[in-house]
Amino acid sequence: MIIQLQQGIPAELKENILKQVQEIGYKANEVVTQQAHYLVAIGKKEFDIRQIGQLPGVADIHRVSEEYKLISRRWRVNPTVIDLGDGVTVGEGNFSIMAGPCSIEGEEQIEKVVAHLVENNVKIMRGGVFKPRSSPYAFRGLGIDGLKTFHRICRENGIKIITEVMQVSQIEEMIDYVDVFQVGARNSQNFNLLDALGEAQKPVLLKRGISGTLEELLQAAEYIFSNGNEKIMLCERGIRGYEKAYRNILDLNAVPVLKEKTHLPVIVDPSHGIGLRDYVASMALASVMAGADGVIFETHYTPEKAFSDGQQTLNFQESERLIKQMRQAYALRESF
Amino acid sequence: MIIQLQQGIPAELKENILKQVQEIGYKANEVVTQQAHYLVAIGKKEFDIRQIGQLPGVADIHRVSEEYKLISRRWRVNPTVIDLGDGVTVGEGNFSIMAGPCSIEGEEQIEKVVAHLVENNVKIMRGGVFKPRSSPYAFRGLGIDGLKTFHRICRENGIKIITEVMQVSQIEEMIDYVDVFQVGARNSQNFNLLDALGEAQKPVLLKRGISGTLEELLQAAEYIFSNGNEKIMLCERGIRGYEKAYRNILDLNAVPVLKEKTHLPVIVDPSHGIGLRDYVASMALASVMAGADGVIFETHYTPEKAFSDGQQTLNFQESERLIKQMRQAYALRESF
Amino acid sequence: MIIQLQQGIPAELKENILKQVQEIGYKANEVVTQQAHYLVAIGKKEFDIRQIGQLPGVADIHRVSEEYKLISRRWRVNPTVIDLGDGVTVGEGNFSIMAGPCSIEGEEQIEKVVAHLVENNVKIMRGGVFKPRSSPYAFRGLGIDGLKTFHRICRENGIKIITEVMQVSQIEEMIDYVDVFQVGARNSQNFNLLDALGEAQKPVLLKRGISGTLEELLQAAEYIFSNGNEKIMLCERGIRGYEKAYRNILDLNAVPVLKEKTHLPVIVDPSHGIGLRDYVASMALASVMAGADGVIFETHYTPEKAFSDGQQTLNFQESERLIKQMRQAYALRESF
Amino acid sequence: MIIQLQQGIPAELKENILKQVQEIGYKANEVVTQQAHYLVAIGKKEFDIRQIGQLPGVADIHRVSEEYKLISRRWRVNPTVIDLGDGVTVGEGNFSIMAGPCSIEGEEQIEKVVAHLVENNVKIMRGGVFKPRSSPYAFRGLGIDGLKTFHRICRENGIKIITEVMQVSQIEEMIDYVDVFQVGARNSQNFNLLDALGEAQKPVLLKRGISGTLEELLQAAEYIFSNGNEKIMLCERGIRGYEKAYRNILDLNAVPVLKEKTHLPVIVDPSHGIGLRDYVASMALASVMAGADGVIFETHYTPEKAFSDGQQTLNFQESERLIKQMRQAYALRESF
Repeated sequence: MIIQLQQGIPAELKENILKQVQEIGYKANEVVTQQAHYLVAIGKKEFDIRQIGQLPGVADIHRVSEEYKLISRRWRVNPTVIDLGDGVTVGEGNFSIMAGPCSIEGEEQIEKVVAHLVENNVKIMRGGVFKPRSSPYAFRGLGIDGLKTFHRICRENGIKIITEVMQVSQIEEMIDYVDVFQVGARNSQNFNLLDALGEAQKPVLLKRGISGTLEELLQAAEYIFSNGNEKIMLCERGIRGYEKAYRNILDLNAVPVLKEKTHLPVIVDPSHGIGLRDYVASMALASVMAGADGVIFETHYTPEKAFSDGQQTLNFQESERLIKQMRQAYALRESF
Repeated sequence: MIIQLQQGIPAELKENILKQVQEIGYKANEVVTQQAHYLVAIGKKEFDIRQIGQLPGVADIHRVSEEYKLISRRWRVNPTVIDLGDGVTVGEGNFSIMAGPCSIEGEEQIEKVVAHLVENNVKIMRGGVFKPRSSPYAFRGLGIDGLKTFHRICRENGIKIITEVMQVSQIEEMIDYVDVFQVGARNSQNFNLLDALGEAQKPVLLKRGISGTLEELLQAAEYIFSNGNEKIMLCERGIRGYEKAYRNILDLNAVPVLKEKTHLPVIVDPSHGIGLRDYVASMALASVMAGADGVIFETHYTPEKAFSDGQQTLNFQESERLIKQMRQAYALRESF
Repeated sequence: MIIQLQQGIPAELKENILKQVQEIGYKANEVVTQQAHYLVAIGKKEFDIRQIGQLPGVADIHRVSEEYKLISRRWRVNPTVIDLGDGVTVGEGNFSIMAGPCSIEGEEQIEKVVAHLVENNVKIMRGGVFKPRSSPYAFRGLGIDGLKTFHRICRENGIKIITEVMQVSQIEEMIDYVDVFQVGARNSQNFNLLDALGEAQKPVLLKRGISGTLEELLQAAEYIFSNGNEKIMLCERGIRGYEKAYRNILDLNAVPVLKEKTHLPVIVDPSHGIGLRDYVASMALASVMAGADGVIFETHYTPEKAFSDGQQTLNFQESERLIKQMRQAYALRESF
Repeated sequence: MIIQLQQGIPAELKENILKQVQEIGYKANEVVTQQAHYLVAIGKKEFDIRQIGQLPGVADIHRVSEEYKLISRRWRVNPTVIDLGDGVTVGEGNFSIMAGPCSIEGEEQIEKVVAHLVENNVKIMRGGVFKPRSSPYAFRGLGIDGLKTFHRICRENGIKIITEVMQVSQIEEMIDYVDVFQVGARNSQNFNLLDALGEAQKPVLLKRGISGTLEELLQAAEYIFSNGNEKIMLCERGIRGYEKAYRNILDLNAVPVLKEKTHLPVIVDPSHGIGLRDYVASMALASVMAGADGVIFETHYTPEKAFSDGQQTLNFQESERLIKQMRQAYALRESF
C-alpha cells in the first residue's frame, strides 16, 4: 500500500497516519523523494483502504500487490519522463539514443565521438571511466581524470554524459561530471550502491543482472526510488544462456513486459545483447519495434583499435545509418 | 566439401569422382535432392580443391568448414525461396504470414479462421491435428480426419496448410493434405523423422529445440537436405530459460545470425516465444525488424475458449491490426 | 484420481464405475498394465471419494493432485523394483551398475567389455547400436546386426543388455535382443515412441531431456505407464547450461527430489553428466550418496580409440576402481 | 607468467627484473601477499622463460596460460590450507563443517546454536548480520551490534565466525569480530570489494555468482590474491536454472573441476544449492563424495520461526545426524 502525503504535511498529521497504519498491523516505510513524500506500508491483513484514505494529510492511496511498489504501474499509471536538462528528456514521447565507446580512451577519441554525435543530433554519450573487468590484470579505465576531460568536452558541445559507477565512494567524486549514473549488470544487486544512488540527485540507468529476473530488476529499482530518487531507467542488455553463437541472449520479451509493469523508461543495449558488430543494427531496430524508449550502443571511430569491446562496436558509418533507421522505425511505431 | 555434379552425369564419371575423393582420404555422401545431385565429402586433410574440381562431371565445388554443409551460405550465396504453388512463396523478397489456431477444433472454427485470413490476404493457415502434449491425459488433436476437413475448406479458399507431423508413419497419411510439414520443438532432433522428411516431396518448417543451439538446428536441417529435400524453413520459437515472467525467451538474436549462416528462410513464432497474448504483437513486429522472412502466430475467434494455448492466442481484431502493422514494418525494412 | 479395479472385474461392474465417474464430471482413462487394471480419472470437481471407493469392483482408490498420477508416490508408497530375470533387479534394496561403451563397435570390443563386467560382477551392459548424432554425416551405429552380436555374447555370459531405441518401428525388431530399452534425452518427449514402449513387454530407462524439467520427465513416464508398461527407470544425465567448463550440468538435486515424487527407480549417468573422463568417478560417487538406485557409465578398453564419446569414457582400470568404490559408498549409505 | 621473488629482494634487483620483463613486451603486476612477493607478467609473446628465471633475485618462475594465475594449480601444485587459529584449518587433510542460521537474530539464538555446535565438535559458525535482500522492505540483519554479540558468545566457546560482508566500508568495522569474510553470490563480481578484501588480513570465502562461470569465480579469487590476500576459499552454492522444483541447481560438477584447476579449498553450500530442507542432507553427503573440502549449511533450533530461509534450514536433530554422516562419508573418501 502506498500512501502519498500532502506536500508539507504537519508532523502531527503524519504521526497520526503512521499510528493508524501500525494499528492495522502494517509496517510503514517513510519515503521522501525529490518529488514527493510517501509512506510505503507493508503487510498482509485485509482491511478497508478508505480507513486510511480519509485521514487528514493523505493526498492519495493505492494498494499494490507486487513486491515492488513505488515503481509499479498499478500505482502510477502515467509513464515517468526524466529531464536531463537543456530540453533532453528520456521516456514516453521521445526516443533516446545514447552512443559512444565502451571505454573513454583520451581527448582525441572523445572529441571524435562528440563530433559524430553532434552531426547526428544525438544528445547523450556513453563511455566508461571505471570499468568492471573479469580479470584484475585488464585495463580498468581512465578514472576520475578521464571523466573530467569527458565532461569538459561534452559540456562544450551540449552533450549529456552517461557513465558507470561501481561503488558508493565514487558517487561523490563523480556526481558533478555525470548526467546519468549507470549501474552495470554485475552491480544490479549491489544493494548498498543502490541505496546510495537513491540519495543522489542524479538519474540512474539500471542494467538487468547477468542472469537477473525482471522481478529482481524491478526490486532493485525500488531500492533506488524508496531512498528518494525517482529518476530511474531500466536497461535490458542480454542475459546469459547456453547458446555459443553470440555473447548474450538479448531478451526483448522484457521490453513490453517491463513497460506494462512499471512507469519507468526502458532502454535496450543491443551491443552487449548480442556482442557481435554485424548484428547490432538488426537488434537495435528490433528493440525499437518491441517498444523500447531508447537504445544505448557502442561506437568508435576505429572499433578494431578500441581498448575494450571492439568486436561489438560500430564504426561511425554504421552508427549513422543505424541512427537514421531507428528514427524511422520509431516514427512508424508511433504511427500505429 | 560439396561437389555438385552435372545433371544426368554418367555412372562411370561419378564413380571416378568418388574414387578420387576416397583416395584423398575423404568419405563421400551422395545426395540427390529434388533439384540437384551432390557429393558431400567429409574429411580433414588439406589438399588442392582443383584436383577434384577439374574432373569431368563436376559442375561446381566448394569447401565448407562448418559441420553443416549443404544448407550453408558459404556454399550457396543466394537465399532459398520456397514455392508453395499458386504464387505463394516463402523467402527473400516476400514477407510470409502464417496464422491460425493452436489446434484444429472442427469445421466451424476452420471456416471462421479461413474467412479471417482471406479477408486479410493471408495465404497460409496453421493449425495442429496431431498435438504433442506433456500429459498423456490431455487433448491430442483431431487427427487425420480433422486434417481432411482442414484441407477441404482451405482448398476451397486458396489457403495453404502448415501442420505438425510427429512421427514417420504419419507422413504418408498426411502428405496429400499438407502444404508444409511442421517439425515441433520436441522433435527437432528426432533424426529418423528428419531423415524421412528428407525423402518427402513437401516443404518442411523446422522449429528450434526447447533449448536447441543454432548449430543443432542447422544440422537438423542438414539431415533433411542431405536426404533429398531442399525446401526447408527454420523457425525461432523461444528457448527455455530461468525467467518466470513469460513462457519462453524469444531469442531474436537467432534471426540475423541464421540469415548469415544459411540460405534457408527464417520464420519467427512470437506466440510460443513469449506465450502471453498482450505481448505477441510487440514481439512479432520486433521479429520483422530483426530480419525474419515471416511470422507464424496463433489466432482464434474466441481465444478464451480455444482447446489449447488460449493464453497466447490473438482474437481476430488483434490479428488484423498486427497483420497490417507487420506489413508496414516490412515495407520500412525493405526501404533501408 | 486413481481407481484400481479388482483383478478380473466383470464388465458390468466396470461399466457402472465408469458411469459414476462420468456423472461426477470426470473423464476416465482405462489403463491395463502388465500388473493391474486401473481407471485414471481426470477432473477438478470436489466430491467425496468414498462415493466411488465403495462401489463393487473397486480394489483401491487415491486422489493424486499432480499432473502425473500412476507413477506418483502419493498413490504407490512402496518403491518399484524391476526384475530383469536371472536374479537381476533394479530398484530399492540393490545398487545397479550398468557399464559399457558409448557405441557397440564389433565382436572383439563386446567380448572385452563383457569379460571386464563379468570379472567385476556387473550384470548389465550398455552400448548403442542406433546412435542419435547431431550431424547426418557421423557414425550412426552398427544397427540391428550389431545388436544381434551384442545379444549373443551377453547371453553366453549372463549379462543383461540396455540399448537405445530411436523410433517406433525399431521396437519390434529389437525386442528379442534387449533387456532394457533406453530412451535418449533427445527423444524424452517423443510421445509416439513413449506410447509404443508402453505397449512393449520390456523395461524402459527414460532419460531426462536436454533441458527437461522433472515435471516433464515424470509425465513422460506417465505416458509409458498409462499405456500398460509399469517397468520404468528414470535417468538423470545432466542438463544444458551456460557453463563451458564441462559438457552438461549433472543435476544431482533431481535424485532426492525424484525419489520423493515417484516410486520408480532413479539412475544417474555421470559420463554424459560431466562429459570429462577425469571427473566421472567423483560424480558417480556423489550420485550414490545423493540416493541413486544405480549408475550407468561409459567404459572401453581403449577410450582414446572409441568410435564416439571417448573423452568421457573410463578405461578398465578406472572402471574397476570406480565399481569398488561405488559399492563401498552404497554400503555406507545403506548403513545410515 | 608468475615470477616469485626472493624474500627481501633488494630494490635494484627487482627493478632490473621488471625492466627485463618490460623489454620482452610484458606488463608486470607487482603482488605482495601476506606470504610472498611476486611479479605477475601478462603478455603473449613467445620467449625462453630461462631468460628471466636466471636473473638474480628470482626464486621461482612458471608459465600459466589461464586468465587466472596466482590461484592456478599449474603454478602451485600443493593445496592451500588456511589456518583460522586454535588448531582450526580449512583445506586438504581435513573436512570443514560450517553451520548456523541464515540470519543472526539475537543472544538466545546464538547461544543455542553455539551449544549445538560445541556438542557436535563443529568449530565454525555461520550467520548473517548484513543481509542482501531482493526487496528494500525486507529484514536486512542486525548489523554491527549483532556481530559484536555473535563474536562475544563465539569467543567464549571457541567457535570461529564466518559472516557476509557487503561493502568496502564494512570491512574495517567488522574485521575484529570476524574469522572469515563471506562474499555472497550477488557480490561475486563486485571488484572494488574484492580489491579491498585482498588488502584485509582475514580469510575470505568467495561464493560463485548467481549464474557465475567457474572462470569468473577463479578470476574473482585472483582479484583477492593479487591484492595481497592468499587465504581464499571458493564456494559452490547452486546456479540459476529453468527447473522450478528447487531454488537453484547445485552444480557439483564444479567441485572436482575446481579442485583440479586451483590450489584453493572448495566448500559447498547445499542449503542454498537446493533450497528445500528435506533434501539438504542428501546433497551435503553428495558434496563430500564429489571431493569438497567442507560444507556450509543452515541450522536453527526452530527453522519454521527463522527470520529468513527457514524453508531450507535444518533443525538440530537433522543437523546432528548430517554431521555424523558427513564425517563417515569423508572417512570413506579418504580411504579410497
